[in-house]
Amino acid sequence: MFFASDNGGPAHPNVLQSLIDANAGYTSGYGAEEAMQDVTAEIRRVFEAPEAAVYLVATGTAANALLLATYANPWDTVFCSPMAHIHEDECNAPEFYSGAKLTLVPAENAKMTPGALHAAISAEESRGVHGPQRGPVSITQATEKGTVHTLDELKALTDIAKEFKCPVHMDGARFANALVSLGCTPAEMTWKAGVDAVSFGGTKNGLMGVEACVLFDPKHAWEFELRRKRGGHLFSKHRYLSAQMAAYLADDLWLKTASQANARTAQLAQGLQQHNQAELLYQPDVNIIFARYPRRAHQRLRSAGAQYYVWDGDPDTGDPDAPLTARLVTDWSTTPETITQFLDILHSI
Amino acid sequence: MFFASDNGGPAHPNVLQSLIDANAGYTSGYGAEEAMQDVTAEIRRVFEAPEAAVYLVATGTAANALLLATYANPWDTVFCSPMAHIHEDECNAPEFYSGAKLTLVPAENAKMTPGALHAAISAEESRGVHGPQRGPVSITQATEKGTVHTLDELKALTDIAKEFKCPVHMDGARFANALVSLGCTPAEMTWKAGVDAVSFGGTKNGLMGVEACVLFDPKHAWEFELRRKRGGHLFSKHRYLSAQMAAYLADDLWLKTASQANARTAQLAQGLQQHNQAELLYQPDVNIIFARYPRRAHQRLRSAGAQYYVWDGDPDTGDPDAPLTARLVTDWSTTPETITQFLDILHSI
Amino acid sequence: MFFASDNGGPAHPNVLQSLIDANAGYTSGYGAEEAMQDVTAEIRRVFEAPEAAVYLVATGTAANALLLATYANPWDTVFCSPMAHIHEDECNAPEFYSGAKLTLVPAENAKMTPGALHAAISAEESRGVHGPQRGPVSITQATEKGTVHTLDELKALTDIAKEFKCPVHMDGARFANALVSLGCTPAEMTWKAGVDAVSFGGTKNGLMGVEACVLFDPKHAWEFELRRKRGGHLFSKHRYLSAQMAAYLADDLWLKTASQANARTAQLAQGLQQHNQAELLYQPDVNIIFARYPRRAHQRLRSAGAQYYVWDGDPDTGDPDAPLTARLVTDWSTTPETITQFLDILHSI
Amino acid sequence: MFFASDNGGPAHPNVLQSLIDANAGYTSGYGAEEAMQDVTAEIRRVFEAPEAAVYLVATGTAANALLLATYANPWDTVFCSPMAHIHEDECNAPEFYSGAKLTLVPAENAKMTPGALHAAISAEESRGVHGPQRGPVSITQATEKGTVHTLDELKALTDIAKEFKCPVHMDGARFANALVSLGCTPAEMTWKAGVDAVSFGGTKNGLMGVEACVLFDPKHAWEFELRRKRGGHLFSKHRYLSAQMAAYLADDLWLKTASQANARTAQLAQGLQQHNQAELLYQPDVNIIFARYPRRAHQRLRSAGAQYYVWDGDPDTGDPDAPLTARLVTDWSTTPETITQFLDILHSI
Repeated sequence: MFFASDNGGPAHPNVLQSLIDANAGYTSGYGAEEAMQDVTAEIRRVFEAPEAAVYLVATGTAANALLLATYANPWDTVFCSPMAHIHEDECNAPEFYSGAKLTLVPAENAKMTPGALHAAISAEESRGVHGPQRGPVSITQATEKGTVHTLDELKALTDIAKEFKCPVHMDGARFANALVSLGCTPAEMTWKAGVDAVSFGGTKNGLMGVEACVLFDPKHAWEFELRRKRGGHLFSKHRYLSAQMAAYLADDLWLKTASQANARTAQLAQGLQQHNQAELLYQPDVNIIFARYPRRAHQRLRSAGAQYYVWDGDPDTGDPDAPLTARLVTDWSTTPETITQFLDILHSI
Repeated sequence: MFFASDNGGPAHPNVLQSLIDANAGYTSGYGAEEAMQDVTAEIRRVFEAPEAAVYLVATGTAANALLLATYANPWDTVFCSPMAHIHEDECNAPEFYSGAKLTLVPAENAKMTPGALHAAISAEESRGVHGPQRGPVSITQATEKGTVHTLDELKALTDIAKEFKCPVHMDGARFANALVSLGCTPAEMTWKAGVDAVSFGGTKNGLMGVEACVLFDPKHAWEFELRRKRGGHLFSKHRYLSAQMAAYLADDLWLKTASQANARTAQLAQGLQQHNQAELLYQPDVNIIFARYPRRAHQRLRSAGAQYYVWDGDPDTGDPDAPLTARLVTDWSTTPETITQFLDILHSI
Repeated sequence: MFFASDNGGPAHPNVLQSLIDANAGYTSGYGAEEAMQDVTAEIRRVFEAPEAAVYLVATGTAANALLLATYANPWDTVFCSPMAHIHEDECNAPEFYSGAKLTLVPAENAKMTPGALHAAISAEESRGVHGPQRGPVSITQATEKGTVHTLDELKALTDIAKEFKCPVHMDGARFANALVSLGCTPAEMTWKAGVDAVSFGGTKNGLMGVEACVLFDPKHAWEFELRRKRGGHLFSKHRYLSAQMAAYLADDLWLKTASQANARTAQLAQGLQQHNQAELLYQPDVNIIFARYPRRAHQRLRSAGAQYYVWDGDPDTGDPDAPLTARLVTDWSTTPETITQFLDILHSI
Repeated sequence: MFFASDNGGPAHPNVLQSLIDANAGYTSGYGAEEAMQDVTAEIRRVFEAPEAAVYLVATGTAANALLLATYANPWDTVFCSPMAHIHEDECNAPEFYSGAKLTLVPAENAKMTPGALHAAISAEESRGVHGPQRGPVSITQATEKGTVHTLDELKALTDIAKEFKCPVHMDGARFANALVSLGCTPAEMTWKAGVDAVSFGGTKNGLMGVEACVLFDPKHAWEFELRRKRGGHLFSKHRYLSAQMAAYLADDLWLKTASQANARTAQLAQGLQQHNQAELLYQPDVNIIFARYPRRAHQRLRSAGAQYYVWDGDPDTGDPDAPLTARLVTDWSTTPETITQFLDILHSI
C-alpha cells in the first residue's frame, strides 16, 4: 500500500522494453539521434503544433527552471501559486537559472484566482525601475493539491497574462493526469488556452526520468538549447531519454497510465467519502488526495503497511480521535486491490 | 566502424539487466533508496575512503560544475588545462554554477606542467582584492587528448595546489581508462595523490548516463546535496541511477569495460604506427587516438563506413596526400575485428 | 514644500566642506587612505564594537545586497517584511548578489510579528533538501512606513532568529532616525539586540551617497571585501566616501540631522492629527508620514507647490471629498516654516 | 612625487565647485534630475550621436560589467586582451554580471592583434552547443600599458567583430587620454570605428568617481537601466554624479585634464629616454610609463619620496645594478616641476 508519491513505483514495462530496443548499435548523441526526430514529430502531432521546439531533460525541476529562465529576464518576477512546486520544492532552482524572483499569488484550491493574479501583476512596475518587472505567469496543471484548472479557469489566467504581455508557463509534471481529467486535447489545454511553454511531465507517470520541454513558438529554441547545456542537462547518450519518451507516446501509453492513476484515486476518494470520519480537503481531480481522518485510523493503516506522508506533524501524539492530514498519491501501477485493502482497513475502524 | 565518441555505443548488458531488476516494487526516491546505500558503501570500499560522501548525477558536466561550485568561491579562479572539458565543452556551466572563472595553465600533452601551474597560481592574488582569488586546481584524468598523468605527475601538480591551499578536483570522465592504464588503485590515483574530489565517470564506459561525485572529506556533503537539488540534478526516481552504478561496480565491470576500450585503442595505435604515412599526435594511454594521415586514406575509410571526427577543417579540399587530423575513440563495445577492418583499409592504401 | 523623499534635498554643508578638505594631495585609494582608518575607529567607538569590520559603499541597495550575500547561502531564503525595501525596491538585487530568495513574513505596522516569523522559519526545511534553507532575518529599522521597532520588539525577532541559528541583518537606511526616536545607543539597537550586521545609512540623512556596512563579527570581513569588489562597489577614489562618513560622525552630525528630520515630521503629524478630515495610517516614529485626507486638500496643496507621492492612483479622478493616501517625508533640511505653510493650507480647506 | 596611479590625486576644482553649485534646493533623484538631461544632451553632442543612451555610474568596474552584461549572453565568451582590466582587475565582476566567460586574445603592446582576434573568434562555436558562443569584443582604449590603438587598428579589430556579428565594447577608463593622443573626435574613436558601447571614464581624469556608459544604439537602454538598478548602481542622489559629469564636459575640461596628464608623461618619457640605463617597455601614448632602470636608481627615487609600483618583485633584494620595472602614472595634477625633480634625481645617479 504505497501512496507516498507517484515517483516511488516502477516504470512501465513498455519503457524498459524501449530502452532495451534502443540499446543497440551506434548513434549520434546529444539529441541528434534519429529517435529524437521521431519524438519531436510525435509531440508536435500530439500538441497540433507543427512549429514547436521540443527538448528532453531528466528532471521536472530542470524542465521548469530552464523554461522559466528562457521566458523571464533576471530583473523580472514570476507569478505563481504559493503551493507551486517551483516555489516550495525546487531549492531556488528557478531563481538560480533565471535570476528572477517569484511573486506568490493567492490561490483557492491551489489555483491562482484571476482577481489575485490581476492585482499582483498590476502592482508590479508601479515602482518603475525600482521593483522587479512583470515576468512569466506559471500555472501548475494539475496542482500540487490534486486539483485541475478547467479550460475556462486557464483562459481567465492567461487572458490576464496576455493583457500585461506576460508569457505563460505550464508546470505539467502531472500534465497527463490533468488532461485525462478534463477530457480535452493537449492543444486545448496549452496553446489554445494561451500557454507559451509547457513542462510536459513523464517521470511521475510511468517513465524513469524524462520530461519534455515544449516551446510553441520556436523563436527561443536555440537559447533553450544553450541554457540546457550550460545547466549540465544535455545528455550525451540522449537516446535513453528519447527511447523513454517514444514509449510514453506510443499507443497513447501516457494517457492510459494517467487514466489508471486517476481511476485509483477516484476509487479511493469514493471510499473515503463514504467514511463518516474522513474528509477530503480538495477535489481529487487527478491522482492526489489530501484527506483528514483520525490518528487512530492512520496508526492502523500504517501498521498494516500503508505508506504516505502526514502533513501536519507527529501522528503519534495527541488525541487518537483528533484528525490529521494525509497525502495519498496513486500512480499507474496502483492496483484496485490495494485501494480496496486500504479502504477495508479504514472502514473497519 | 564507429570511432566518433565513447558516448555513441550501447550500454553494457549488465546495466540494462540491473535496471530491469531495479524496476520492481516501491521505494523511496531522491537517493534514499537502499540501493544507493550499497553504492555508497561500494564506492567507499573501492576508494578505501570510508568517510567519503558519494552522490550520483546523470551528466559529466553536472558532476564537474557541481563539484567545482562546492570547492570554489564566486570570486576565485579555477586552474585547468586549455584542453579541459570544463573550459572547452561545457558552455560556461562551471562558471554558471560556481561564479568563478577559469585560468588556463599551459600544458604539454594536454597535461598542465608543474612549472606553469606554479607560475599561474603565484600570479593570482598579486593584485589583492582586485583580481580573482586562488581557487581549485582541476586535473583531467585521462585527458581529452588520451594521455594519462602518472602518479608522480599528479603529485607534482597537487603538491603545488597544497602549497597554495588550493583544493584539487579531478575530472574523471575517463577515470577507469586512466586507472587501468596506470595499473594503480583508485586511492592511489586520487586522495593518496592529493585529490580532494573526483567526478567518477560511468557514462563513457558502459553506463547510460551516471557519474559519481566523490568528496573524500565529507564536510561539504550537505552543501553538495543542496547544490545538486538547486541545479535540478537530483532525480526523484533515483533508483535508476543507483542501479546503473551498482552494475558498474559489480564484479569490476567498470575495470573490464575500460580495459577492453583501452585494448582496442592499443591495437589501433599499433596498426597506425606501422603505417609509414600515419603519425600519432599524443601517446594513446587510454581509448583515444589523435592521428594524422593523408586525406586520401580518410576518404577511403569514410567510404567504407568509418565514423570519427576530423579535427582540422574540410577533409574534402586540398591535396589528397596532405595529412589531416583524425580523432579515433573506442569503447567497451568496439570489437577487435572492427579495428582489423579499419587497419586493413588503411594499409591497403 | 518638498516631501517626496529624503533623497531629494541637499547634502549637509559639513559634508561638502569635508569633501573640499579631503580634496588635497595624494593618497592611497580603495579604502586604504588614512581617513578610512579614522572612520572605522569612529564607527567601532559609536557602536561599542572594537572588532567590527566596517566598509563603505555608495548606495543602500548595494549595502543590503552585499551584506545579505555575505550571510545567506544561494540555497537559503531571507525572512523579511512584505514592505521591506529589499523586496519591493531593489529590482532583485538581493537575489542577484546572494542567489537566495525572500520569504515574506506577515507584518503589523510594517514590522514582522514574532509569531509570523516563528511560523515562517519553522515552515522552511520541513521539506529537507527540496525547499530553500533558513537564511538571514532582515529587519528594516526604521521601516518603510515610518514605524520603529522597540528594543523589545527587536529582541523578540532576533531571539527567534537565534533559536534557528539564522543571522540577523538590519536595513538601517534610516538607522539614525530610528535611533533618535528610541533614544537608545547604537549598540543597544544592534548587536546587543541580536543584530549581526547593519546597513548603516547616511544618504537619506544628509550625505551625498554613503552607507556603512558594519559586521560585528569580523570573520566574514575578507569575503565582504571580495564581494564588494566583484559587485563593482569598491571606489578607487575612496577618500570621497570616507570624507562624507567622517563629516557624518563628527560632532554627532548624524544624530542632529536625524533629530531635525524627525522633529519636522512630528510637527507635521501634530498638525494633521488636529485636522478632522486627516488621518495617519501609521505611527510616525521617524521622518515619514502616511496620511489620508480628501482629494480636494491634496489638489490645493499641490497647487501651492507641495511635492509628495500619492499612494493610491490618480488623485484627479473621483469624488473630491474622497480621501487619498499621501506619503510625506522630511529630512534635515526641512524647515519649520515649510511645515507651517503646509499645515496652514491644509487647515484652510 | 606621486606616480602610483591616476586615482590618487585630487579631483579638479571645477568638479568640487559643480558639486557645491548642485547642492541647493530639492530635485528628483535617480537620474531624473534636470542636470542629467543636460549631461545626456552634451554627451550626445560630443559623440555626434543624437540617439545614444547615456547613463552614469560611479566606478569603472560597474561601467564595464554592466555594459558587458547588456551585450553578452550568459553562454557567450567575451574577447579581450590578457592585460584587460576586465580580466585582471575586476575580481570576476564581468562574469558575475554577464554570466559569460572571457577569452584572452594574444596581444602586442597590450593591443589584441587582428590575426589573433580572428583566430579566437573563429575557434569558438566550432563546438556548437558545447562550447561558449561568440560574444562581445572588448577593447581597452587606452590600454593598461599606456598604448593607444590607432583608428586603423581599432577598425581592423571591429571589422572582425562585425564579420562574426559580435558587438564591440570599449573600456574607456582612459578614453580622454587616448583621444587627445590620437587627436581625433570621440565619434571617430567610437561608433565611426565600429564601437557599440563605451565606458567613458571620468574618475581617472579629474572626477571623484563618475563614468558614463554610452550605448550608441538605444535599443538596450531600458535593459541597461534595470541591470544598473539590480546591481545597486543607481544613485538616489544622482545629482552628485551628473554635477561631476557636467563639470567634466564644460569648456572641454576633460580634454584639458587629459592633455595635461599626457604632457607630463611625455616629459617624463623624454627624460627617461635620455638616460642610458633606463628603458621604456611600451610606447607611452598616454599617461602611463612602464620603465626599466637599476634598483639603485629606484632606491634613490624612493628615498626622495617618489611613489609608484614596482612590477617585478622585491626592489630591495639582488644586484643594485640589476633593472626592475616601474609603472609611473601621471594625472592632470602632476606638475612639470615634479617631473623635473624626478628626472634630476634619476640623472644624478
